[in-house]
Amino acid sequence: MNEKLKQELKNKIRIIPNFPKKGVLFQDVTSITDNSDLFKKVIRELSIYAKKNRVSKIAGIEARGFIFGAAVANQCNLPFIPIRKKDKLPGATYKQKYKLEYGEDEVQVHKDAANSKDRILIIDDLIATGGTAKAAAKLINKLKPKEIRFHFIIDLNNLGGFKKIRDEFEACSLIKSTG
Amino acid sequence: MNEKLKQELKNKIRIIPNFPKKGVLFQDVTSITDNSDLFKKVIRELSIYAKKNRVSKIAGIEARGFIFGAAVANQCNLPFIPIRKKDKLPGATYKQKYKLEYGEDEVQVHKDAANSKDRILIIDDLIATGGTAKAAAKLINKLKPKEIRFHFIIDLNNLGGFKKIRDEFEACSLIKSTG
Repeated sequence: MNEKLKQELKNKIRIIPNFPKKGVLFQDVTSITDNSDLFKKVIRELSIYAKKNRVSKIAGIEARGFIFGAAVANQCNLPFIPIRKKDKLPGATYKQKYKLEYGEDEVQVHKDAANSKDRILIIDDLIATGGTAKAAAKLINKLKPKEIRFHFIIDLNNLGGFKKIRDEFEACSLIKSTG
Repeated sequence: MNEKLKQELKNKIRIIPNFPKKGVLFQDVTSITDNSDLFKKVIRELSIYAKKNRVSKIAGIEARGFIFGAAVANQCNLPFIPIRKKDKLPGATYKQKYKLEYGEDEVQVHKDAANSKDRILIIDDLIATGGTAKAAAKLINKLKPKEIRFHFIIDLNNLGGFKKIRDEFEACSLIKSTG
């Protein structure tokens, strides 16, 4: 991992306290996309990871995962699979429900988005408790790919989600931080 | 405009009838992102447009506009501005409400996302009646940029949104279709 990029991310990602609710230190990844040079470096780093691991498709989790995932897919000349919220995809879909702090949510993917030959890299900006990432893995697993791996920009490591994902999948994050 | 790409898009974009509701012919842009070669060509075409028009920032409308906008921004080495739905951006925001068929919605942008020196290209996958695009323009206008222009992939030209946008802004679409 690129130590210089890691330090630059730690210096430049703006932290906004009490968003979206009291007690949360929100890591604002628009600090990355606002800065064309930093955005380029992050996409390059994720693309190197994708190529090194012979990934065949990039998936991104709605909505911020689309920003990073689609740019990586384009840079690597790979297809991009959107993992979407409920009722957004028009074709036949697999669905996966998951629990939120209050209530539940659902992610969906097109049934023809990938097959047993694919090695899929799921990209998201941030992993906190890992509920969405775990649901995304269960969902993508329904496509029966050869491999699933994850790459995040930020691991909020005090919330433990990254460790849980790593117990089951190959997973990387560019930086660790406190959520 | 690249006539060969136009024809390829017309041939390859899957149309799903009666989604999200009866009577709509939904243009499924995952037909583009599923196909790494076609995705690459679309991003290249939008990037040529951005460079030719000396755009300084790319904005994308949540959520599908993130897929195309972020890839173009990365390819052009430009910052990416996410135009987000209500309560998603953590910093100080400008807000713009707009009417839906039933009820209303809102888009937001960070107040420090751009300034009076910027020429902003707003990217979205599709323009139908133009309600969201018009709200995005009003919103981005609050940043007082030097210029706003639009690029869509698909103009559902029987719904008239593209013409309304063109009355006020420079605007392009890769293909015209029937919604």
